[in-house]
Amino acid sequence: MSPARIAVGPRPSRRFTAAVADGGGEVVAADEAPDGLVWLDPRDIGGLAAALRAAPGIRWVQLPFAGVENVVGHDVFDDSRVWTCAKGAYAEPVAEHALALALAGLRMLPRRIGARSWGEAAGTSLFDRPVTILGGGGITRALIDLLAPFRAEVTVVRRTSEPVPGAYRTLPTAELHSALPGAAVVFLALALSPATTGIIGPAELAAMEPTAWLVNVARGRHVQTDALVEALASGTIAGAALDVTDPEPLPDGHPLWGRENCIVTPHTADTLEMTQPLLAARVRENVARFVAGQDLVGAVDPTAGY
Amino acid sequence: MSPARIAVGPRPSRRFTAAVADGGGEVVAADEAPDGLVWLDPRDIGGLAAALRAAPGIRWVQLPFAGVENVVGHDVFDDSRVWTCAKGAYAEPVAEHALALALAGLRMLPRRIGARSWGEAAGTSLFDRPVTILGGGGITRALIDLLAPFRAEVTVVRRTSEPVPGAYRTLPTAELHSALPGAAVVFLALALSPATTGIIGPAELAAMEPTAWLVNVARGRHVQTDALVEALASGTIAGAALDVTDPEPLPDGHPLWGRENCIVTPHTADTLEMTQPLLAARVRENVARFVAGQDLVGAVDPTAGY
Repeated sequence: MSPARIAVGPRPSRRFTAAVADGGGEVVAADEAPDGLVWLDPRDIGGLAAALRAAPGIRWVQLPFAGVENVVGHDVFDDSRVWTCAKGAYAEPVAEHALALALAGLRMLPRRIGARSWGEAAGTSLFDRPVTILGGGGITRALIDLLAPFRAEVTVVRRTSEPVPGAYRTLPTAELHSALPGAAVVFLALALSPATTGIIGPAELAAMEPTAWLVNVARGRHVQTDALVEALASGTIAGAALDVTDPEPLPDGHPLWGRENCIVTPHTADTLEMTQPLLAARVRENVARFVAGQDLVGAVDPTAGY
Repeated sequence: MSPARIAVGPRPSRRFTAAVADGGGEVVAADEAPDGLVWLDPRDIGGLAAALRAAPGIRWVQLPFAGVENVVGHDVFDDSRVWTCAKGAYAEPVAEHALALALAGLRMLPRRIGARSWGEAAGTSLFDRPVTILGGGGITRALIDLLAPFRAEVTVVRRTSEPVPGAYRTLPTAELHSALPGAAVVFLALALSPATTGIIGPAELAAMEPTAWLVNVARGRHVQTDALVEALASGTIAGAALDVTDPEPLPDGHPLWGRENCIVTPHTADTLEMTQPLLAARVRENVARFVAGQDLVGAVDPTAGY
């Protein structure tokens, strides 16, 4: 059993102090020499750095979000302690949002929702269609579960070629181009790193089917926005459904707004209402593992950057 | 083995004559004393009646749609022969459309698609939520399969209380009101009959949660439209997503158009492109059963009217 004096910052909330206690930890203030720190504010990186300077005994930091690229890019991140993030914890609502966007695109909901008159029959079913998912993490696994009843043949493209359970095939990123033709939907569910920034550009869009939808629930910077605007204008692909954009927020007047072949949601795949109970469950589990001296869930790999 | 001289009307198409032949039948013209008739035009009821008068030896009629209320209401329908419809055959694309509409409502896609500016985070997840489905047929079974990975607790309300596989509970129609409170989504997937016409009215809408969506992929006349308009205007329910309406087509200027809490699709849950291969598979199977003297799939119950 390790000591488990855990601070919750920048402001303790009852949900998370209860999660620490439920996991077997002792809730302490940031200036009471904590062993671990649960940090709840994804924007307050300066506050996080100050808390770590004030309490050098902190051996573990739990971050509140799944993608950590904005922490990894700061001096605050170091390998003198264990860092965990929420990766995987929010996978289900994010995968659900991805499915909702894909079905909305294939079923032509932008045109239907914009209509003020009865329209012509049209639309595409996802049953028995091939789809491609970039990324091999928790969102992909949850999405594969949601796609299973559609008998969708899933190709996963990921950093390694280690097979993802439930996928028809798993390919390494170098073979991305062989995974794009034929797919009814291309889902982006991967982490943002230098290697994946701009991974969808003109060549990738051209390799997709003219009937295919691109669904991005990862990070806006995975997609080269200018190339996407051009592909949507010229009909290179059928449409794009984006929960994340580059720039983000998408500015007023941007050409991605108001198109029948583009759906933009304002980074709401996982709202606070959805994520807070899931993060509390993750905190509870990691405190219990910290107390028991076990490996923590969602450890950040400083080399990979996620 | 029964004789199986099968006519395809009003105009034979290669897809369906091939299906008859694949099932072991002999394709004949309508005036060559057929034993069975595959009727492909859902609107040409007069042509169907004429074909039956001209060929009194027809012992089986295959209809091309799932809901037969417009045939049952005509003199053409009789119990001197076996009538089969496509019920169940189109269940998967219709269930898919129902799920697409439910997720679009819960994820606020009408507001997002109408937006020209980045919005506030909001939306609801279907994971672990209770839902209610009216109807116990093929669409319901397919929808239960699609909902399974969401761990949605499904209540089915149907004419009998015979349990539907995969449902958490199955209730008879008399207990409809106990199935409405608590449901995140109420799906309509039942047949239209005198008993189910107008089954959703002011009292049923009032019994639903103010956060709930109503999804109708059955028939427009299941819902009392005036009551629904009022419920949407007053916030009695969160929203309605309708693939069918009353009147249908929904006329220009109708108050259901253009609302952030209403989605209307023009009866496109199953487009011809989706249904034709499924109907051909049903024809092939029923011809094979007809040849073998077995019970046919999708037999219409003249008493129940579906």
